Amino acid sequence: MKKNLLTLLILVVILSGCNNSNQEKKTEDMKTETNGEVPKISDFPVGDPNTAYAQYFSGRSWLAPLTKMSELNVPMSNVTFEPGCRNNWHSHTGGQLLVAVGGIGYYQERGKAAVRMTPGDIIEIAPNIEHWHGAAPDEWFSHLAIV
Amino acid sequence: MKKNLLTLLILVVILSGCNNSNQEKKTEDMKTETNGEVPKISDFPVGDPNTAYAQYFSGRSWLAPLTKMSELNVPMSNVTFEPGCRNNWHSHTGGQLLVAVGGIGYYQERGKAAVRMTPGDIIEIAPNIEHWHGAAPDEWFSHLAIV
Repeated sequence: MKKNLLTLLILVVILSGCNNSNQEKKTEDMKTETNGEVPKISDFPVGDPNTAYAQYFSGRSWLAPLTKMSELNVPMSNVTFEPGCRNNWHSHTGGQLLVAVGGIGYYQERGKAAVRMTPGDIIEIAPNIEHWHGAAPDEWFSHLAIV
Repeated sequence: MKKNLLTLLILVVILSGCNNSNQEKKTEDMKTETNGEVPKISDFPVGDPNTAYAQYFSGRSWLAPLTKMSELNVPMSNVTFEPGCRNNWHSHTGGQLLVAVGGIGYYQERGKAAVRMTPGDIIEIAPNIEHWHGAAPDEWFSHLAIV
């Protein structure tokens, strides 16, 4: 009987240990599901719905300005695209640098094949080159954009 | 005796379950240990040992240039610091933008308290401001640096 009790005690200790790990796992999962309707796919803020430029996008996007120091002359924002959302063909007189930081997206230059972008990918866009960028059909996508 | 055996059986099943989770955890940890001696703490390349600037750092660092298009005029690199490594007090005539992408580090401006940096944190350094940046004592650290 004593042995039974001992085994039962060990069992309870182990079970409670396993439950704790599951609890930690769940809390971790919840941490990555925030920002209201936008899933957390990067370490950068999502910002506000990109209503000002909505007419240039095929779906919903979000914009978070990340810099403010005018002396540096390196305005940087985080742009988040909902799945399937991309912007129209456009170009920048000063060029643009894209840094993929979350999810999966695409970049295409006029006359070239679309390029898949995943976190860590960098795209350098020369001045006046016509292009578009956006999310993969079924994936959210975030990139930093430096003009 | 049968009860004892049953309890033992349950115990074994649970224990093996717990072991499996540990095994998965271990495999996951191993996935993040690549790049030779540098652990994988970000989605960006680590590059080569930063020997050219070694005299300005208190320990080992690695440098990965990420851009090459001179028209954009936005040179960007990923800098990785081993735990406890920081650079000396210095300044840039054009200022600098730091984007934390992996691990934990610190940034300090002369006369101010050190600021802790984790992935997603941005530091804008005005021209000619004396400062240093580097890893926390026990953590690797990577940041993008834009001059």
